[in-house]
Amino acid sequence: MFEKEYDVIVVGGGHAGAEAAAAAANMGSRTLLVTMNLQTIGQMSCNPAMGGIAKGQIVREIDALGGYSGIVTDKSVIQFKMLNKSKGPAMWSPRAQNDRMRFAEEWRLALESTPNVDFYQEMVSGLLVKGQKVVGVRTSLGLDIRAKAIVLTNGTFLNGLIHIGEKQFGGGRAGEKAATGITEQLTDFGFVSGRMKTGTPPRVDGRSLDYTKMIPQPGDAKPEKFSYLATKILTEQRDCHMTHTSALVHDLLREGFDRSPMFNGRIKSIGPRYCPSIEDKIHRFADKDAHQIFVEPEGWHTVEVYVNGFSTSLPEDVQYKALKSVVGFENVKFFRPGYAIEYDYFPPTQLKHSLETKLVDNLFFAGQINGTTGYEEAASQGLMAGINAHLKITEQEPFILKRDEAYIGVLIDDLITKGTEEPYRMFTSRAEYRTLLRQDNADLRLTPRSYKLGLASRERLERMEEKERRSKDFVSFFRNTSFSPEDINPILEELESSPVKQSDKMFKVFSRPKVTMEHMKRLAPVADYIVEHALDNEVLEQAEIQVKYSGYIAKEKNNADKLLRLENIKIPEGFDYRKLKSLSYEAREKLEAIRPVTISQASRISGVSPSDVSVLLVFLGR
Amino acid sequence: MFEKEYDVIVVGGGHAGAEAAAAAANMGSRTLLVTMNLQTIGQMSCNPAMGGIAKGQIVREIDALGGYSGIVTDKSVIQFKMLNKSKGPAMWSPRAQNDRMRFAEEWRLALESTPNVDFYQEMVSGLLVKGQKVVGVRTSLGLDIRAKAIVLTNGTFLNGLIHIGEKQFGGGRAGEKAATGITEQLTDFGFVSGRMKTGTPPRVDGRSLDYTKMIPQPGDAKPEKFSYLATKILTEQRDCHMTHTSALVHDLLREGFDRSPMFNGRIKSIGPRYCPSIEDKIHRFADKDAHQIFVEPEGWHTVEVYVNGFSTSLPEDVQYKALKSVVGFENVKFFRPGYAIEYDYFPPTQLKHSLETKLVDNLFFAGQINGTTGYEEAASQGLMAGINAHLKITEQEPFILKRDEAYIGVLIDDLITKGTEEPYRMFTSRAEYRTLLRQDNADLRLTPRSYKLGLASRERLERMEEKERRSKDFVSFFRNTSFSPEDINPILEELESSPVKQSDKMFKVFSRPKVTMEHMKRLAPVADYIVEHALDNEVLEQAEIQVKYSGYIAKEKNNADKLLRLENIKIPEGFDYRKLKSLSYEAREKLEAIRPVTISQASRISGVSPSDVSVLLVFLGR
Ligand SMILES: Cc1cc2nc3c(=O)[nH]c(=O)nc-3n(C[C@H](O)[C@H](O)[C@H](O)COP(=O)(O)OP(=O)(O)OC[C@H]3O[C@@H](n4cnc5c(N)ncnc54)[C@H](O)[C@@H]3O)c2cc1C
Ligand SMILES: Cc1cc2nc3c(=O)[nH]c(=O)nc-3n(C[C@H](O)[C@H](O)[C@H](O)COP(=O)(O)OP(=O)(O)OC[C@H]3O[C@@H](n4cnc5c(N)ncnc54)[C@H](O)[C@@H]3O)c2cc1C
Repeated sequence: MFEKEYDVIVVGGGHAGAEAAAAAANMGSRTLLVTMNLQTIGQMSCNPAMGGIAKGQIVREIDALGGYSGIVTDKSVIQFKMLNKSKGPAMWSPRAQNDRMRFAEEWRLALESTPNVDFYQEMVSGLLVKGQKVVGVRTSLGLDIRAKAIVLTNGTFLNGLIHIGEKQFGGGRAGEKAATGITEQLTDFGFVSGRMKTGTPPRVDGRSLDYTKMIPQPGDAKPEKFSYLATKILTEQRDCHMTHTSALVHDLLREGFDRSPMFNGRIKSIGPRYCPSIEDKIHRFADKDAHQIFVEPEGWHTVEVYVNGFSTSLPEDVQYKALKSVVGFENVKFFRPGYAIEYDYFPPTQLKHSLETKLVDNLFFAGQINGTTGYEEAASQGLMAGINAHLKITEQEPFILKRDEAYIGVLIDDLITKGTEEPYRMFTSRAEYRTLLRQDNADLRLTPRSYKLGLASRERLERMEEKERRSKDFVSFFRNTSFSPEDINPILEELESSPVKQSDKMFKVFSRPKVTMEHMKRLAPVADYIVEHALDNEVLEQAEIQVKYSGYIAKEKNNADKLLRLENIKIPEGFDYRKLKSLSYEAREKLEAIRPVTISQASRISGVSPSDVSVLLVFLGR
Repeated sequence: MFEKEYDVIVVGGGHAGAEAAAAAANMGSRTLLVTMNLQTIGQMSCNPAMGGIAKGQIVREIDALGGYSGIVTDKSVIQFKMLNKSKGPAMWSPRAQNDRMRFAEEWRLALESTPNVDFYQEMVSGLLVKGQKVVGVRTSLGLDIRAKAIVLTNGTFLNGLIHIGEKQFGGGRAGEKAATGITEQLTDFGFVSGRMKTGTPPRVDGRSLDYTKMIPQPGDAKPEKFSYLATKILTEQRDCHMTHTSALVHDLLREGFDRSPMFNGRIKSIGPRYCPSIEDKIHRFADKDAHQIFVEPEGWHTVEVYVNGFSTSLPEDVQYKALKSVVGFENVKFFRPGYAIEYDYFPPTQLKHSLETKLVDNLFFAGQINGTTGYEEAASQGLMAGINAHLKITEQEPFILKRDEAYIGVLIDDLITKGTEEPYRMFTSRAEYRTLLRQDNADLRLTPRSYKLGLASRERLERMEEKERRSKDFVSFFRNTSFSPEDINPILEELESSPVKQSDKMFKVFSRPKVTMEHMKRLAPVADYIVEHALDNEVLEQAEIQVKYSGYIAKEKNNADKLLRLENIKIPEGFDYRKLKSLSYEAREKLEAIRPVTISQASRISGVSPSDVSVLLVFLGR
């Protein structure tokens, strides 16, 4: 049925697979997306939300690079919030609540309107490998489909095992089959696989909840959006609600601990520390009497509700009894209980920076299969794997984002350098240069690079250039235009900031901590400039950040540049660390296993000390 | 988790289950819908279309009774056709092409907005039975959920086995798990189960087809709709397209026959004679060189296409090679191959007219589990089972539609009286009184009865009464108003119908074969009447039918009434046929097995001859 060879086959239509297929196709690769069920493309397995702290930045980066996650999110959003707006702009993080069904449908339609993407519904049960190179996949029907490169994005499906209390059954997600065959074949090839687990809360009937007892959590008064393109902005939103557990709820939950797969040892694999189950939270923070619960609608019209914060794999009767004791949930009706799922992953130190495997050429891994958790983490890896699969088969250099360029760079560098023993999720704290990696400037950082690759569209580039030009001009305006003390002093007084004696450039007073664009706007020349140049919010925000954080930004840039020098010192492929007896034993082992490409990467491997780095530098003649 | 007892539990959220849950709930039963995947409620397993010949009438009946299928169809329709419009109104059959995803979503939302319906996602693995009475279900997690009545609507899922060429694997539908446990338990209880099969064509990528080589099949210029309520009428439609197979295509298909599960004996069960696979068609009609293929879009926006007429379980390479040779399909890309599925059903002679099983009290079966095929057949049974489950537990008489009242009556009577050895689908020819059972009068026939039951809403009744009153008045107008020969003769001339000499009542000339409402409208008094009374199309159509077919209708009513007398002769429960040695052996066997409730039902059993009926009549003292 598949006579011709594809350029790229993507296995799996989750967040990673969908982005991978779109990216490879948009760069010009004839791409086939093979997935077990074409109706679950872009399915949100867990919470119906995108973004959040650090994750929102990733979605913006995906969008800036020409991925689809931001657009799909904007098309299916039912509530928008910019988190951390009270903190510095490095912390601002967009978050969307989504209509779960709409989200999946928009993903499917987006891919369908990508000319180079073909679709095929089936389980892939193995890879076709010739020598050290992958050349195709084999499906469960026994079909061989050939391709120059393969991207595996199997998510939680590889030998997936679902746990609820003492019950367990195979499955990749509630109601869906697990995928078999791939892990076994890959371990035969010499890959190391591991086991991880994650969990999800019960879904309940919104009609059975008493929202009057909860605290409404509305969206932002002025909602923004994810895509840098001209997607629509929300005009109507749905509320979330907040409630909390109690000592009683915790006691009720504890009653099920001996029947819990988490505590009775049935689940041995490691779960996400930062998305713990409710039983984990009670166990680890025994002194806390209450945990927050966010009640999130699953869509515009459905009554189904997601109980965020109550992820659990306790027996369903325990889940029910405990949840009924949560304020507002007294009459709760379950749509389905929470559950945990165990699945195979492949420690990502087996990958290169391009997400190609070290063992098998032209084989790429992306998403949860690499030990990450979260849609955003998965989607961004998919995008990068799709790009690099295309670059590889067209014999171009891989596209690698550095740690000071993107959260995506941090993510992938962390994964392949440090590996991960527990489900990896992104945090702002993982990024050394988070003042550089803001949600407001992902386009400025990444769109030009992606355009050069042939992925980001001309329209995207032009929008970004326009924004860049306008905000630069506006910053220059502040640098070059003076205020008069009479105009500014009333504002400073209001802010309890010391008054100025004489006129000076606006930039200077704008740099003061409490002074914001809103204040500056009250100066007639500023207001006039904005009107005259018809500046939109994005430009105002960009200019404000450029003015107010110029110091921090410059400092981080400087630090990054320093490190870049180490980054430029390449370690030759096949370098023999065993010869360097002056390296510590641990460093030698780790370096041998991970095979870093640069000194900088070597320095980030846990177990490689500064003195080990010095040894390497000396040896490499620096 | 389920402390309280439900009134009714419906197992399965297909077309039967969805209608059953809605009906029971709307009559006042606290209803739980348990289904394996809450995201596939109302899923169209096969073609994305509702209605068609005889099936369209059923949907209209479901709607008239207060079911949801018509409303859901109207909300998700992308093309509408009234089939057989050139024939008499008894043959007019509405048919809709639907957006597959929208259809399922609208079903789910419709159920969610039904206050008495609760939802639970899980597989039911068994029934709880006490004595001869069902009292609940057990889920695969081991949860016991109690209820006063259970409706089983498992569709094609019971021990479902999917076949493609020589491959076979368990599944209830492509990409979905099969359901196990229920058949085994029921046969333990003494139920007889059988095996049937059905098939579905490949889904393909519309972007790979050349529509310029096919014949467009647009919808009606003036689309109508299914629901008697005020659902919206289509303003935009999608085209279908027609193409055909050829001798070459047939030769290519034949090459796979020895690897076909149908021909090599791997599938032993019987498939739907009237929805045959393409290999069946070639085999049975060996002299035919071409079969029609209808290329149907799967939705408003998706590129996925349904290849109607090409249902097959041949090996996927054979499917592909053959389909590529169909005009317009030269470059076809598959989304997935066609397949056949075998599943368990329960011969429906094990049911009463209420769809309650004879063996276990308060247990109802509806849909494909009863050996039928088709969404409409399933939905109508679901509706009736839902109604009767409610009536049973509230100790009311069952609601049974007679053969002269509804296609639904014909369907159920056929099933429980004659049973079925092959997948049963509805045809107009199955109905003795099809002039009575028209799509235009389902509301007049059924809404008053359903309203009395407490199911059809007051609004529905009022709309129906209004329509009835207005069309009756309009018919009276034709009976009482005279035409003048000068006005009518030009029209008659045009129609080559003999002119009239003198004035007479309009009814008379309107009754002539070629004269239609369109002609009558050209008479000023008729036109005036329509405007004055603001008559809509539905009323015009109804009046026209009443005038033009009054003779046929009266005759069929008369025949039906005659039979009704036999219907009124009840056979006592537990009647011992073995004593009646004068019955033929075959009749005795059949009567013993099926246990008809009335003489009329007995007379319809195949193998029961008119002389057997006479014996019974004599014995029962008539
Ligand atoms: C129960 C559960 C709870 C979770 N909880 C959280 C949480 O609390 N926080 C959080 O951030 N994230 C959570 N996640 C993780 C989040 O869903 C994933 O990180 C994200 O969906 C991963 O995307 P992916 O594309 O890697 O894989 P997935 O979204 O899992 O998609 C995998 C896709 O591949 C297909 N597939 C798999 N194997 C094959 C095969 N052999 N052949 C063909 N197709 C195949 C599947 O059908 C599916 O479409 C949870 C996931 C689950 C299942
Ligand atoms: C491959 C295929 C081809 C078909 N071809 C045709 C055709 O050509 N022409 C035609 O007219 N009809 C065809 N049909 C039939 C048509 O799809 C059915 O007649 C119709 O869908 C039956 O409706 P139903 O409600 O009885 O069952 P289904 O629509 O099958 O729904 C059954 C529901 O029950 C659920 N379920 C099953 N078992 C359990 C359990 N133990 N616990 C919980 N939930 C359960 C399932 O998840 C599903 O939601 C085909 C069906 C299939 C699968």
